Amino acid sequence: MITWNSEAEYFKGIGKIGFEGQGTDNPLAFRWYNPDQLVAGKKMKDHLRFAGAYWHSFCGNGSDPFGGPTHLFPWDVKSDPLDRAKAKMDAAFEFLSKMNLPYYCFHDVDVIDYGNDIIENEKRMQLMTDYARAKQAETGIKLLWGTANLFSHRRYMNGAATNPDFHVLTHAAAQVKAALDATIALDGENYVFWGGREGYMTLLNTDMKREQEHLAKFLHAAKDYARKNGFRGTFFIEPKPCEPTKHQYDYDAATVLGFLRQYNLLDDFKLNLEVNHATLAGHTFQHELQVAADAGKLGSIDANRGDYQNGWDTDQFPNNLNEVTEAMLIILEAGGLQGGGINFDARIRRNSTDPADLFHAHIGGMDTFARALLIADNILQHSEYKKVRADRYVSYDSGKGKVFEKGGLNLEDLRDYALSNGEPKTISGKQEYLENLINRYI
Amino acid sequence: MITWNSEAEYFKGIGKIGFEGQGTDNPLAFRWYNPDQLVAGKKMKDHLRFAGAYWHSFCGNGSDPFGGPTHLFPWDVKSDPLDRAKAKMDAAFEFLSKMNLPYYCFHDVDVIDYGNDIIENEKRMQLMTDYARAKQAETGIKLLWGTANLFSHRRYMNGAATNPDFHVLTHAAAQVKAALDATIALDGENYVFWGGREGYMTLLNTDMKREQEHLAKFLHAAKDYARKNGFRGTFFIEPKPCEPTKHQYDYDAATVLGFLRQYNLLDDFKLNLEVNHATLAGHTFQHELQVAADAGKLGSIDANRGDYQNGWDTDQFPNNLNEVTEAMLIILEAGGLQGGGINFDARIRRNSTDPADLFHAHIGGMDTFARALLIADNILQHSEYKKVRADRYVSYDSGKGKVFEKGGLNLEDLRDYALSNGEPKTISGKQEYLENLINRYI
Amino acid sequence: MITWNSEAEYFKGIGKIGFEGQGTDNPLAFRWYNPDQLVAGKKMKDHLRFAGAYWHSFCGNGSDPFGGPTHLFPWDVKSDPLDRAKAKMDAAFEFLSKMNLPYYCFHDVDVIDYGNDIIENEKRMQLMTDYARAKQAETGIKLLWGTANLFSHRRYMNGAATNPDFHVLTHAAAQVKAALDATIALDGENYVFWGGREGYMTLLNTDMKREQEHLAKFLHAAKDYARKNGFRGTFFIEPKPCEPTKHQYDYDAATVLGFLRQYNLLDDFKLNLEVNHATLAGHTFQHELQVAADAGKLGSIDANRGDYQNGWDTDQFPNNLNEVTEAMLIILEAGGLQGGGINFDARIRRNSTDPADLFHAHIGGMDTFARALLIADNILQHSEYKKVRADRYVSYDSGKGKVFEKGGLNLEDLRDYALSNGEPKTISGKQEYLENLINRYI
Amino acid sequence: MITWNSEAEYFKGIGKIGFEGQGTDNPLAFRWYNPDQLVAGKKMKDHLRFAGAYWHSFCGNGSDPFGGPTHLFPWDVKSDPLDRAKAKMDAAFEFLSKMNLPYYCFHDVDVIDYGNDIIENEKRMQLMTDYARAKQAETGIKLLWGTANLFSHRRYMNGAATNPDFHVLTHAAAQVKAALDATIALDGENYVFWGGREGYMTLLNTDMKREQEHLAKFLHAAKDYARKNGFRGTFFIEPKPCEPTKHQYDYDAATVLGFLRQYNLLDDFKLNLEVNHATLAGHTFQHELQVAADAGKLGSIDANRGDYQNGWDTDQFPNNLNEVTEAMLIILEAGGLQGGGINFDARIRRNSTDPADLFHAHIGGMDTFARALLIADNILQHSEYKKVRADRYVSYDSGKGKVFEKGGLNLEDLRDYALSNGEPKTISGKQEYLENLINRYI
Repeated sequence: MITWNSEAEYFKGIGKIGFEGQGTDNPLAFRWYNPDQLVAGKKMKDHLRFAGAYWHSFCGNGSDPFGGPTHLFPWDVKSDPLDRAKAKMDAAFEFLSKMNLPYYCFHDVDVIDYGNDIIENEKRMQLMTDYARAKQAETGIKLLWGTANLFSHRRYMNGAATNPDFHVLTHAAAQVKAALDATIALDGENYVFWGGREGYMTLLNTDMKREQEHLAKFLHAAKDYARKNGFRGTFFIEPKPCEPTKHQYDYDAATVLGFLRQYNLLDDFKLNLEVNHATLAGHTFQHELQVAADAGKLGSIDANRGDYQNGWDTDQFPNNLNEVTEAMLIILEAGGLQGGGINFDARIRRNSTDPADLFHAHIGGMDTFARALLIADNILQHSEYKKVRADRYVSYDSGKGKVFEKGGLNLEDLRDYALSNGEPKTISGKQEYLENLINRYI
Repeated sequence: MITWNSEAEYFKGIGKIGFEGQGTDNPLAFRWYNPDQLVAGKKMKDHLRFAGAYWHSFCGNGSDPFGGPTHLFPWDVKSDPLDRAKAKMDAAFEFLSKMNLPYYCFHDVDVIDYGNDIIENEKRMQLMTDYARAKQAETGIKLLWGTANLFSHRRYMNGAATNPDFHVLTHAAAQVKAALDATIALDGENYVFWGGREGYMTLLNTDMKREQEHLAKFLHAAKDYARKNGFRGTFFIEPKPCEPTKHQYDYDAATVLGFLRQYNLLDDFKLNLEVNHATLAGHTFQHELQVAADAGKLGSIDANRGDYQNGWDTDQFPNNLNEVTEAMLIILEAGGLQGGGINFDARIRRNSTDPADLFHAHIGGMDTFARALLIADNILQHSEYKKVRADRYVSYDSGKGKVFEKGGLNLEDLRDYALSNGEPKTISGKQEYLENLINRYI
Repeated sequence: MITWNSEAEYFKGIGKIGFEGQGTDNPLAFRWYNPDQLVAGKKMKDHLRFAGAYWHSFCGNGSDPFGGPTHLFPWDVKSDPLDRAKAKMDAAFEFLSKMNLPYYCFHDVDVIDYGNDIIENEKRMQLMTDYARAKQAETGIKLLWGTANLFSHRRYMNGAATNPDFHVLTHAAAQVKAALDATIALDGENYVFWGGREGYMTLLNTDMKREQEHLAKFLHAAKDYARKNGFRGTFFIEPKPCEPTKHQYDYDAATVLGFLRQYNLLDDFKLNLEVNHATLAGHTFQHELQVAADAGKLGSIDANRGDYQNGWDTDQFPNNLNEVTEAMLIILEAGGLQGGGINFDARIRRNSTDPADLFHAHIGGMDTFARALLIADNILQHSEYKKVRADRYVSYDSGKGKVFEKGGLNLEDLRDYALSNGEPKTISGKQEYLENLINRYI
Repeated sequence: MITWNSEAEYFKGIGKIGFEGQGTDNPLAFRWYNPDQLVAGKKMKDHLRFAGAYWHSFCGNGSDPFGGPTHLFPWDVKSDPLDRAKAKMDAAFEFLSKMNLPYYCFHDVDVIDYGNDIIENEKRMQLMTDYARAKQAETGIKLLWGTANLFSHRRYMNGAATNPDFHVLTHAAAQVKAALDATIALDGENYVFWGGREGYMTLLNTDMKREQEHLAKFLHAAKDYARKNGFRGTFFIEPKPCEPTKHQYDYDAATVLGFLRQYNLLDDFKLNLEVNHATLAGHTFQHELQVAADAGKLGSIDANRGDYQNGWDTDQFPNNLNEVTEAMLIILEAGGLQGGGINFDARIRRNSTDPADLFHAHIGGMDTFARALLIADNILQHSEYKKVRADRYVSYDSGKGKVFEKGGLNLEDLRDYALSNGEPKTISGKQEYLENLINRYI
C-alpha cells in the first residue's frame, strides 16, 4: 500500500496516469480517456475540460456530522498558514499533473486560511496568487474558475448577500472582491457564484423578496467590478435547491434563469450545473442540462453523484454509464459547454483513506465521462436517435402547424382545424425503443 | 348509517351543516367556521371563498391503480349521458348547499361525458351550461373557476398544447374554447390551466424548447379568445412538478413565473397553488404562496394534502393545523387571494364509502382553514411576529444599507464599509422562539 | 409500423426474436441473450428463467390515475368472458413464444374475469386451466408461479387476509383455494403471495397486531391446503413497503423474514423480490437480495425499475447496467435463485402504443440481464473482487478474532485485547476502487 | 438580550421556568406542562419523563458540513480536559435544573474528551462519574440512560461491533465496558445502543451476514457484563435506517425486533424510537411506536423532528401538535413507555445563537408533549375513538371469526363460509371522521 509521503513528493509511488494498453487489469490507468484522441472533430481533452476541485481533494478531511477527520493530510501539520497553504498547493499540483487534469477550481479559503482581518486576508490571497501563477506556468495547468466561500464562516450563518444584516453583506463583498482579483490575476476562465447560505432556514423570520433583491444588487456590483478590472470570462450561477439552508434561492436551472431575466443579469451569467443538485431538486441531471441549453446558458458542470436512495448530497464520483451517456448526448447536441468544463466536485468516501483512493476516484470519473463521450458521439453519428425525435415534430414543419408556430392561428382557427381533421392517430412515444438504442451503444 | 338515496334527495338524512353550539360532540357541524363572523374587518366567508371540486366529489369513484371503483354513485346508473349529467349536477348542488360551500369548480368532462365528436361535445356542454345557470340562480352558488380536461383522453397521452402532433393540439384548442364559453356563460370568476400532460415522459424523444414555445402560443390564443368574448376574470396556471408526466413544465411557482415573464403572459395570468404540488416539488406550501405573493400573483389555492411519508399525491383533505396556520399567515399578510378562493381539490379515501364521509371530509377541511384564519389573525394582531421579522432587516432601512438598496454602492464601497466596521455581531434567527409563538396561538 | 392484427396472429409481422449476428442495427434481436450459451457451467437460460407477466402485458391498458386506456387490445372487444379469456391467452402464448420467454406468471383474474359468484368463478378458472394446459403442452412454456388477486375487487378495499371483517377474509380464502388448484393443475413451480392491501390506510382505525396474526393464520391455512393437495413448489412472499396502502405489512425483506420467523412459516416460504419495491423501501435492490440470500431465502425476482427521481412505482423495464450487474453478482454468489426466476413485472409506458413496443421492452430487459450475467461472471472469475472483500475480514479467520466468532470472549477479554494491541491501523474501504472494477468489466 | 455568562452562572438572567399564569405573552414559561398535574391517575411528570441530551445541548456547536461552529460555549475555552468537562457539567446541570428536566442522557465522550489511551479514558470517565454523582445528589436529576459513542472516532469509520477488523471491535468493547460502569455507578435507568456506523457504505466490500453475527455476539457480551455487574435496567436499541452509513443494520423497529428474535436477545432488549429515524425509514413515528408496542418492546423515545421536505435528519425540536397527539395516543394505549422516557435528542438551529434559544426550544418541545398528553387523554376518556376501532373487528369476537382466530378453520372451511354468506357488505374505514375527531380535541 502506498502511504502519504513527505513534501518532496506527496503521492510518491504513483506515477503519471497513462492510457491503458494491456487488458483490463491495471486500475491505475485510463481505459477510455485518451486526451488526444479525436472525437467529432475535436480532441477528447477539448470536449472534456476536466478540473480538480481544491476543496474536496485537498481540504476535505473525511469528517461528517457524526465523526471527525479520517483523511490526515501531511501538509496540515505545518503551523504557519502560508507554509501550510504552499505545501497544500504543492500537493495539489503534483496530483493534478499526475492525474492529467488540465484545470483546477478553488474557493478563496481552500487556498489559504482566512481570519477576520480583511487586509490580512487580502495579503494572504495575493501571496498565494503569486505562488499559484508560478505553479500554473510550470505545469500548464489552468484555472477553470475561482470563487469565494461565503458560507463556512460563522458570520454567514444567516446568508451572505441575502443576510438580513447589511454589515454581513459588506464582508461578503470584501471577499468576492479579493476572489475576483485572484481569479483575474490567474487568468481564470470563469467565476462561479454558488448560493451557499443564500436562502432561508424558516420563512417565519424571512423577507424573501427583499433578500432576493439584495442578491441581485450584489451580483450586479460584483459583475461591474470584474468587468471594470478586465475580466472577460463568464459568470456562473450554480443552482442548488436546499442544504445548507432549508430553501436555497438558486433552486434549479429554471428558477435561476427566471431570476437572471427578472433582474437583468442574463447577458453576463450562465449556469454551472451539478448532477447532485439536479437530483435534490427532483430533476434528472439531463433535465437541468436541457433547460440551460434551451436558454443558451449551458456554461459548465460539476460532476458527481448523490445517493438516489437516501437523497443525500454524498458527492460521490460519477460512475453510472447510462446517466452520463444521456448527459453527454445533451451536451454534444448543444454544441458543448459554453466557457466551462467538467469539475469533479466530488469527494472520496470517509473511509477511503489511502492516497491511491483519490486517484481511483478520478480515474473512474474521467473514464466514465470519456466513455460516455465516445458512446454519445456514436449514437449521434450512427443511429437514428436524432431522427426519431425530429420526426415526432414534423407536423409543425409545414402547413397549418408551421403557421401556428409563427403565431398565425387563433383559438377558433385551431378548433376549426380539429373539426375538419377528425380524431388524431395514436402515435407511440417509443421510449423503450430509444432506451434500448442507448444501451446498444454502451 | 346513512346510505345513498334516490334522486329526489341524494344525501337524505343529512341536513344543512350548521355552526356547532353544543359542545364538541357533533361531528356534523362546524366548530370554527361561522361564515358571517367578522375577522380583520371582513366576514369569514369573504376570507374563505371555499369551493367544492366537481371531479373528486362527484366523479371520483375510489378506483386506484390497484383496484376498481368503491364509491358507487346512484346517478351513474343512468344510461343517457345528459340524464346522468343532470342527476350528477342535482347531487352536486344538493351537496354544495348542505355543505355551505359558496363556490364550485369543474373541468368540462366532469360536468358531462365527452365523445370524439366536437360538435356534439359543444352541444352537450351548452345544454349543461344552461342547466347549471338555473342551479346557480336557485342556490346562489357561484362558479369559482372552470377548466378543460386535456389529459384523460387517449389523444392527450403525449400532451395537449405541447403534443408533438399539431393535430392533437387543435383538439385541445377546441376543448378550451368550449370550456371558456361555458365559464363565461356561467359568470365564472376565473379560468384555470393545469398542465395535465404538458411535460415529458422521457427527454430522449422530446424537444422541450419547441414544446414550451407551443404552450406559450396556445395560452396567448386562449387568453385572446376569452378577452374578446368578454371574460374579465383571471387566468390561473397551476404548478405541478411531476405526475402524470415524468416532468411537468409548470414545475413550481418560480418556474411558472419565469415562463410567464419570458413569454409575455405576466399581465393576464396568476397562480393557483396546490398544497400537494408544493410538497411534490420539494417545497413547503408556504414557500409557494410566498413566491407568488412576492410577485403579486397569488391568485387562488387548491387545498389538500399529500402523503409526506411516501411522496404520493393522495389528495387528502387538509387537517394539519400548524401547516395551514402558517399558510394563512402568508395569505393574510399578502392581503388575501387575488380573484380566487380555496378549492378543495381533495378526495375522500378509497375506503371512505359512506355518503357522510364526504361531509366529514369537507367539515374537517373547512374547519381547519377557519381555525387557522382565526389563529393567524390573532398572531398578526396581537403578537410581535411581524415586528421580529421587520427588525431583522433594520440595517437596510437607513444609512449605508439604504443607499445599497437604492443601488448607490459599488463593490469597493461595500468592501470599505466592512473594513471600517470590523467583524459583525452574531444575531440569532430565533426560529424556535417563532415556532413556539405560532403554537401558543393555536 | 406494425399494428394489432386479427386473432389468427395478433403480433403479425413480428417473428421469433433471434440472436443478433449482424451489427447493432437490428433492434428486434437479442444482442447478449443467447439461451444456450454456457456461463459458469450452465446455459444462460438456466441462469435466467425469464417469465412474462400476464397482468402488465396482456391486461394493462395504459390507463393511469389521470386518464383512460391507451392500449386497446383486439381481444378485449369480445363480449363473452370465456371467449375473451381464450383470445387473450392465444395472444399471450403467441407473444411468449416469439419472445423466447420460457415462463409466465398470472393472477387468477388476469386469466379470466371474475364476478361475485364463487362457484361460477371456480368453473371459469377450471376451464381456463384446461386451456392453458394445452397451450403449455404445445409450446413448452411453463408456469413460473400463480397467485390470486386479492386487492382489485371492491370488497378488499380494507384488506383481504387482514380485513377487519372476517367475511371478507373468507372470500380471499375462496380465491386462494381456486388459484392454488389452478397452479397445481398447471404444474406451477411456485406460488406467490403479494400483500396487495394487507396493510393500513391509517393507524387510527387499525389493530395492527390482530391483523398480522390473521395474516399468519391465513398463510398457514393456504400452505396446509396446498401441501395436502400435492403442491411441492415454494411459497413466495413479495415485500412492498407502501402502495396501495399507506403501510404494507410485508414492508421489506427483513420485515418479512422477521414475520415468517415469528409465526413459524420460515420452512415453507421464501422471498420474491422486486427492484421497485426495494427502492420504495429506501433500499437498493442489491440490499434486498443480500438480506434474502443471507437467510437462505432468495427465491425469485420481479424485474423492473421505478422512477428514482419521483419515487413512483412506474414498473418500467430494467435497463440500468450498473444496477443489474451488481444484482447479478449477488445472485451468482448466492448460487442462483431458489426455485424462482426473473419475472418481468414491468409495463410499457402509457404512450408506448405500438405492438412492437412490448417486444422492444422485453428485449431491453432480457438483454440487460443477460449482459449483466456475462459481466458478473467475468468479475467473479477473473477479478480480485471476491478476494478484496474476503481479505477485509481476515482478522476473524484465526487467533482471537476466530475465538470471538465462536463465542469464546467476554467483554473484559475484548477490552484487554484492545489494551494490549494499541490503536488499530486505518484500513481503507476501497469503495471507488471496487466501483471502477465493476465498470471496467461492463 | 441575555448572553453567555461566566462560570458562576452560565445562563444568568434566566430563572427557573415556571408554569404560565398570566396569559400567553411570556415565552419563557410552560403553558401546558405542569409536572404535578394529574392526568389519568398519574402526575404529568410521571407520564413525561423528559431528559436533556448532553450531546446536542452542551457539545453541539452549530457546525454543519458547510460551516464551522456558531455556538461558542464559554466552557470550551478551558484548556484542561477535566476542567472543561466539569465546567460543561456545571452548565448542564444549571440548565437541566432551570428547565425542570428530571433526567439527562449522555454518550461517554459528551461528558469528557477521550484520547487513544484506554486506561487514561477510563480514569477520566471515573472522575467525571464521581462529579456527576454529586451533581445528581444535589439536584435530584437522574440519568435516564448512558451510552458509548462508537462512531465519531476515526477508528470506527468502518463500524464498531461490525468492523471488518477485529481489533477495532475490541476498542468498541473497551468503551462500552467503561460506559456501562459509569451508567451503573450513576444509577442509570437504562443503557442505549445506537448503531452509529454499524452498517455499510457499499455492499461491494461487505459481508453483511458475518457483520450482523458479530453484532449479536457483541451485544450478548455487553449484556452479560452489565448483568454480572448489577445492572437491572433495560437495554435499548435505537433503530435508524441510514446515515452516517448508507445502510444501517438497525433499520427500523420491525428489523430490529427480527434481529433480536433471531439472535436470542428479545428478553433483555427493548426499543428506543426516534421520530426522525421513523421518517427516514419511510414510516410515521406512530407506526414505529405501534410496532414496538405490539411486541411489548416500547421502551423509550427520542423526541425531535426531521425535515419532511428534504428528508434530512435536522433534529429539530418537536412542534407538530397533530403528530405528537397521535403518538401520545399510542403510548397511552400501550400503558406508557417501559423503563424509558422522552429524551430531547434535538438541537437548536445553527443560527439560534442566543442562550435563551436553548430554553425556547425545550419549552416548545415539552409543551407540545404536555399538550398532546392532555388531548390524547381526553380523546381516550371522552370520545368514541377506541370504540370505532374495536367495532371494526367485532366479526372476530364471536362465531366463526373467533374459531378462525383460534386456528380452528382450514382453507376449505373458509371458502365454504364465503359461499354460504354471499358478498360482504361495504364498510367505510371512516378515516376523515377519525381525523376530524383528533382535531376537535386539539
